[in-house]
Amino acid sequence: MRLLRVGDPGSEVPVVLDESGHARDLRPITSGIGGDFLADGGVSRVRDALTGGDLPAMDITGMRIGAPVSRPGALVCIGLNYSDHAAETRAEPPAEPVVFMKATNTIVGPDDTVLVPRTSVSTDYEVELAVVLGGTARYLDSPQDAAAVIAGYAISDDVSERDFQLHRGGQWTKGKSCETFNPLGPWLVTADEVGDPQALRLRLSVNGQPRQDGNTANMLFGVHHIIWYLSQFMVLEPGDVVNTGTPAGVALGANDFGYLREGDTVEVAVDRLGVQRHRIGQA
Amino acid sequence: MRLLRVGDPGSEVPVVLDESGHARDLRPITSGIGGDFLADGGVSRVRDALTGGDLPAMDITGMRIGAPVSRPGALVCIGLNYSDHAAETRAEPPAEPVVFMKATNTIVGPDDTVLVPRTSVSTDYEVELAVVLGGTARYLDSPQDAAAVIAGYAISDDVSERDFQLHRGGQWTKGKSCETFNPLGPWLVTADEVGDPQALRLRLSVNGQPRQDGNTANMLFGVHHIIWYLSQFMVLEPGDVVNTGTPAGVALGANDFGYLREGDTVEVAVDRLGVQRHRIGQA
Repeated sequence: MRLLRVGDPGSEVPVVLDESGHARDLRPITSGIGGDFLADGGVSRVRDALTGGDLPAMDITGMRIGAPVSRPGALVCIGLNYSDHAAETRAEPPAEPVVFMKATNTIVGPDDTVLVPRTSVSTDYEVELAVVLGGTARYLDSPQDAAAVIAGYAISDDVSERDFQLHRGGQWTKGKSCETFNPLGPWLVTADEVGDPQALRLRLSVNGQPRQDGNTANMLFGVHHIIWYLSQFMVLEPGDVVNTGTPAGVALGANDFGYLREGDTVEVAVDRLGVQRHRIGQA
Repeated sequence: MRLLRVGDPGSEVPVVLDESGHARDLRPITSGIGGDFLADGGVSRVRDALTGGDLPAMDITGMRIGAPVSRPGALVCIGLNYSDHAAETRAEPPAEPVVFMKATNTIVGPDDTVLVPRTSVSTDYEVELAVVLGGTARYLDSPQDAAAVIAGYAISDDVSERDFQLHRGGQWTKGKSCETFNPLGPWLVTADEVGDPQALRLRLSVNGQPRQDGNTANMLFGVHHIIWYLSQFMVLEPGDVVNTGTPAGVALGANDFGYLREGDTVEVAVDRLGVQRHRIGQA
C-alpha cells in the first residue's frame, strides 16, 4: 500500500492509494500517519478498511503532498554507504556504518521548495532510500529481526551543504540540518509492497540532466543490517526515519556537475517509491 | 523561577518552585512544560499566577523528577567548547563551534538511572550548561539577538561512550545517542534568575570523588554566540535544548579517572541550577 499525507504544512490529512491508484481518505480510521499509528497496527487497519470498502474516495488533484509521516523523533542517516560514492568523495569505504543525524525539522514534502542557505556556496543533493520504522528497535539480536520493525520505505533527498559539512569544523551536522534539507515522500510504501529493499534503482536529475543512477543492490550495508546495527547504539522508535546513503553522482564528487542554485528543479525517483520534484529557492 | 516536572516517566506534571522553594502545581495554567508553552508566554503566565496566588501548594516529597521540559524537537550539542577539555583530549581548540546532535530520546530525569550500553568499555560523563529555547532562532542577526529566544537553563550530563564515539567509524553520533544518555534537570531556571550565563561554576563527582570543576566563564564560545551561530545553519525551535560543552576532567582525559561502571553514583552541580544524582546501571 501507498500511504501519504496531503494538505497545507501542519494540517495534512492521511490518505491511502488503492490498488488502482485512486486516493481514499484515511480519516475514518486515523487523524495522521506517525509513530503511534504505525506501532498500533495501523497498516493492518488500513488494509482491512480498504478491503471492507470503508474509506471514501477523495480527489487530491492539485493538493500539496506533505511528508508521508508526521515529524519523527529521529532522522538518522548512514554515510558513505555506496562504494562508488565513497570513491567519488575520496573517502575509504567504511568498515562499519557511518552514522549521523539531521534535525527532524528539515523534513518537508517531496515537492516543496528546497532553500539554499544564506552564505551557502555548495548545496548538494543525495537520492536515498529512507526506511520508516513501525516498531521499536533496541538491541536487536540479528539483522533478521529488522524486518519486523520496518513499516515501509520512502524517497529521501538528503540535501547537504558541503562547505558547512566539511570545512566549518568538526562534525557533519552543520551541513545537514538546514531548513527544508530533507524532502521525504511522496509515499510511505509498505514493506510488503516494496519487496526486496536491496533491488531498487535510484535516480536523480537536475534540470533534466541525469546526475545519480544507482541501485540499492550496491549498498555496503543493507537495510536490515543497518537497522540491527543502529539498535546496538540507540533506541529507534516507531515513526523514526533512517536515510540509508546515496550512490555516486553528487556535485561534491569528481565530475563536472554544479551545485544547486535558485531556480533549479531536482527530480528524484526510486523504483516503487514514486517521484519527487522540488524547485530550489533561496533562504 | 524554577520550573520542573514530577511524576512517572511519560506522565509528569508541571510544577514551579516559589521564592521560598515550595512547590506549586502548575496544572491550573498548563498541562506541561514544552515548546508550545514556552513560546506562548508561558514563563510570564507562571509569574502572574504565582503573584496572584493562583497556584495550589503541592507536596512533591519523594516524587520522581523528570526532565524539566518535555521531549524537544532537537538536542544539539557543542563539542570541545572549553580549552582545558580540548587539551585533555589532545584536540585543537576549534576555530568555530563544533556541532553535533544527540537523539532526543536520550533525555531522562536528573536522578534517573543511566545505563552503560551493552558492549561498552568507556562510558563517560560530561557536566554541561544546557540552554532551553523559548523562541525560534533562524538567521539571527547577531549574538545580541540570542537572549530573546532563550527561556532558561538547566544541567545536562552529556553521557558519552568514547569507543563508540571515536573508534567505530566516522561521526560521534554512535557514542552520544545511547538510551538514558542525557539526564536533564532538575529544573529549568528562567534566564532572568540565572543572570550572566558565563559566570557559573560546574562540578561533577563520581562516588564522591571530584572529577570536573569548571566555570562557564571559560567557554571558548559563549551561550549567545552559540545560539546565533547555530541559527545560521539550522532552525532552532521553542523547547529545543542546546548542550554547550564540558570542561576538563572527563575519564577520556589525560588523568587516572576510570570510566563509569554499574553501581557508580554521579553527582552533577551547576551554580543556580541545582544538583543531579544518578546511579549507573547496565543495559
